Amino acid sequence: MNGANIKYDEHGLVPAIIQDETSGTVLMLAYMNAEALTKTQETGVTWFYSRSRRSLWQKGETSGHVQTVKEMYYDCDADTILVKVNQTGAACHEGTFSCFSRRLDADAEQAEKLVDPDKVYKEP
Amino acid sequence: MNGANIKYDEHGLVPAIIQDETSGTVLMLAYMNAEALTKTQETGVTWFYSRSRRSLWQKGETSGHVQTVKEMYYDCDADTILVKVNQTGAACHEGTFSCFSRRLDADAEQAEKLVDPDKVYKEP
Repeated sequence: MNGANIKYDEHGLVPAIIQDETSGTVLMLAYMNAEALTKTQETGVTWFYSRSRRSLWQKGETSGHVQTVKEMYYDCDADTILVKVNQTGAACHEGTFSCFSRRLDADAEQAEKLVDPDKVYKEP
Repeated sequence: MNGANIKYDEHGLVPAIIQDETSGTVLMLAYMNAEALTKTQETGVTWFYSRSRRSLWQKGETSGHVQTVKEMYYDCDADTILVKVNQTGAACHEGTFSCFSRRLDADAEQAEKLVDPDKVYKEP
């Protein structure tokens, strides 16, 4: 199935959960439009649509922290995608492996930074 | 942090990724409004907002397949929540443990059904 059945929202987007295949860590959630999904399937690395910049972007294009696609799934409503990846470096622009480094049920705990974001992410 | 910093979308909703804590399996994605988040935090089981029914619902209220909250996180943009749970039974109304049982990168594979959905989910 090539993505033709995916139900996009009113903005033409579908949320994509990105999970590290090896550790099972949920890394991030980002949005794909049909073009980003096609590019992800064709290139084998993750592409998303930035709602703020209104443009496609390849994860890791600036930082080198690319996500190599291992498996892709969609859910029973066909309105969410799950992508299992091999994460190079850190998924988060803040330098942590996962973007989900802040506790919602307790005082904030900072996850360990794998990289210095100032060194990895250049100014756009 | 009690959820006051969460950034809700134009519909007052935030996507919540639900992950089984023990296995690491991503079970489903659903949406919370502020009330659903508060009820989840207060009751220790997951509550969501149904966009189609326009009402709050407790996961497992009908099926008994409740999700007991273990840990909650939010991401670097504060616009997505990750809830790690202990899943009772099956998360999916189709009877599979996870709602992500369909491959997007290959011919459709059906995940094993843990329960018969016709027996567990009654008509509303």
